[in-house]
Amino acid sequence: MDDMLTLGPNARFIGKPGSRAALDTPALLVDRDALERNIAAMAAHAHTAGVALRPHAKTHKSARIAQLQVEAGALGICCATLGEAEVMVTAGIPGVHITSPQVTEPKIARLMMLHARPHEGLSVVVDHPDNLAALARAARQAGKPLDVLVDFSAGHGRTGCADEAAVAALAREAVATDGTILRGIQSYSGNLQHISMRDERRSRALAQLDRLRGIVARLRDAGIDVPIVSGAGTGTFDLDPEARVFTELQVGSYVFMDVDYLRALKDGRNAPPFETALFVATAVVSVNAQGYATTDGGLKCFATDGPVPDVARGAPGSRYEFFGDEHGKLILPPGAPRPPLGAMIECVTPHCDPTVNLHDFYHVVSGDALVDIWPVDARGKR
Amino acid sequence: MDDMLTLGPNARFIGKPGSRAALDTPALLVDRDALERNIAAMAAHAHTAGVALRPHAKTHKSARIAQLQVEAGALGICCATLGEAEVMVTAGIPGVHITSPQVTEPKIARLMMLHARPHEGLSVVVDHPDNLAALARAARQAGKPLDVLVDFSAGHGRTGCADEAAVAALAREAVATDGTILRGIQSYSGNLQHISMRDERRSRALAQLDRLRGIVARLRDAGIDVPIVSGAGTGTFDLDPEARVFTELQVGSYVFMDVDYLRALKDGRNAPPFETALFVATAVVSVNAQGYATTDGGLKCFATDGPVPDVARGAPGSRYEFFGDEHGKLILPPGAPRPPLGAMIECVTPHCDPTVNLHDFYHVVSGDALVDIWPVDARGKR
Repeated sequence: MDDMLTLGPNARFIGKPGSRAALDTPALLVDRDALERNIAAMAAHAHTAGVALRPHAKTHKSARIAQLQVEAGALGICCATLGEAEVMVTAGIPGVHITSPQVTEPKIARLMMLHARPHEGLSVVVDHPDNLAALARAARQAGKPLDVLVDFSAGHGRTGCADEAAVAALAREAVATDGTILRGIQSYSGNLQHISMRDERRSRALAQLDRLRGIVARLRDAGIDVPIVSGAGTGTFDLDPEARVFTELQVGSYVFMDVDYLRALKDGRNAPPFETALFVATAVVSVNAQGYATTDGGLKCFATDGPVPDVARGAPGSRYEFFGDEHGKLILPPGAPRPPLGAMIECVTPHCDPTVNLHDFYHVVSGDALVDIWPVDARGKR
Repeated sequence: MDDMLTLGPNARFIGKPGSRAALDTPALLVDRDALERNIAAMAAHAHTAGVALRPHAKTHKSARIAQLQVEAGALGICCATLGEAEVMVTAGIPGVHITSPQVTEPKIARLMMLHARPHEGLSVVVDHPDNLAALARAARQAGKPLDVLVDFSAGHGRTGCADEAAVAALAREAVATDGTILRGIQSYSGNLQHISMRDERRSRALAQLDRLRGIVARLRDAGIDVPIVSGAGTGTFDLDPEARVFTELQVGSYVFMDVDYLRALKDGRNAPPFETALFVATAVVSVNAQGYATTDGGLKCFATDGPVPDVARGAPGSRYEFFGDEHGKLILPPGAPRPPLGAMIECVTPHCDPTVNLHDFYHVVSGDALVDIWPVDARGKR
């Protein structure tokens, strides 16, 4: 019962052969071996390319997976929210960088509480002089200067300075202001990661990298130290070596992959060379209709912002449709036998980051066995 | 720090005048007064109509709100998942009914553990003879018969028996089988709740009610006791009194309402007579673009399966668009001043149930003050 409270109802299955097929559903599964191969493959790429890794924890929200990435050579972890950063620092992960501006009074107060704790490197982006001034003021009051990276929007326009002049002005100000230390420039092209054709992705990414290279060169020419240039994602991780602009890569989804990337592999588009490592195990709970069965995996366990889940195991050739908060519709191919009540159906996750955020636990599987359960430590943390 | 661990970073604001505008964002807000008025209005309707209430906890996943509903006269609470039911029974909520079939071995084992605990009434739906047999076998082993309701799909086809004959056969079997006690029939028309025009909603709901009335009458004529006929939702809560089929209503969304219902009110369609009580407070975190600002409310804090959030306060006339996992795009009307960095923007939630499921806490507000924080107890519980 204690294990059920801390690790959920499947804790009793850990280490039992064949337990993967017996899990209480819906359950988020991570294939440990595929995960480790993905982490090793990205580490090998970075080593060969001579670039550092600071993978993005927004994908997995897990201190355990962050630790695996650090053990494979990553110099730190990116976080999208302050709450993720609090979890990672608490777990002893070094080099935590917060990739979204922290601007409100409550967020700056929490950031200073985190900064006051022992940590090996903590940095945050800035994209506006008012925010820089507020952070510097708070850091002066705390008596501990804060590392900042200036954020450049890179055409996405979500956060970041809009142009070269704004980046240069803010970088100079970060250097001149008492309380902040300029550590570098961040530029993440979130809008490019899912462009399906590699040639278009490449040409657009390289155009952005040209702008970024110009910014960095001008700052360095002006005597401003820019040790870090941070950016890229799983869709563009291998484009920069040609341009040699980034000092580190913020790749996230490569650890898991998802339906988008799987589809790219299936239809011959150029998908990144990583394996699908993340699944959701669901079960058939109603079989009274013709042509389909109802599962217990609905929109409270799969993200709905992207494609639908892909059926991976348990019902070959079937298609998934959302069927409400707690149910999925498993549409069977013509003539296929209907899986029986209780049958387990494993699905590849649609957009992996928000799917993970719907689950409390990773059920770590290897082959047919559950081998561990890891909490999704930073789930829902803002 | 203890409060931050248990009630999140806003615990220090409880009871402070003006604190609503100072909250750490993104924060799920529930307007306590509107919530209480909604609960009272539905209770008054049920009293007048001579029907009982067993509101659906899938909407709020909160033992506190369930308790308010019970105090206002509800005879129990519906739950979509076994995990929700575990939370509600633990909190001492009586009359917990599970509205989805529980068919897998792990679920039946957990159901029996719950059933073995002291509780005032626990029931579950069945829609298949194999599941009925499995439940009866488990209940016999536990030495404590289980209350069941036979589920009738009512045209939705998600769960439930497909036709009258199947309902009648399963009901007879539930009576005849040692280990189960037939308590009644459930029929929830999830497919009808959001039909926008009341006349169409009404005619389709009444057609389903005719079928349901026929089923119940035939069972009663055959000497089978059917004390409970459970169904309806916020979109059809007031249609049944004309038909007098249901003994109790499973209404859920009326406590909060959401963008769909707000839109119905705005464009003159016939929306249920309840108030919007649920919001998400977000903050402006980047202002470097023309015509829009970026907020800290993205698809990890708003459900994406329905409409987009409506901007309720802080940026009059603005529209919201999703802008990634952690960000929203606040599109300003032409010529409108841009809200400053850090400005709070409150949004009406899109589909309320899955939005609540993305949050750990209700920030309970009254006027301009935070007055309490309630955990979303059953968030993510399967």
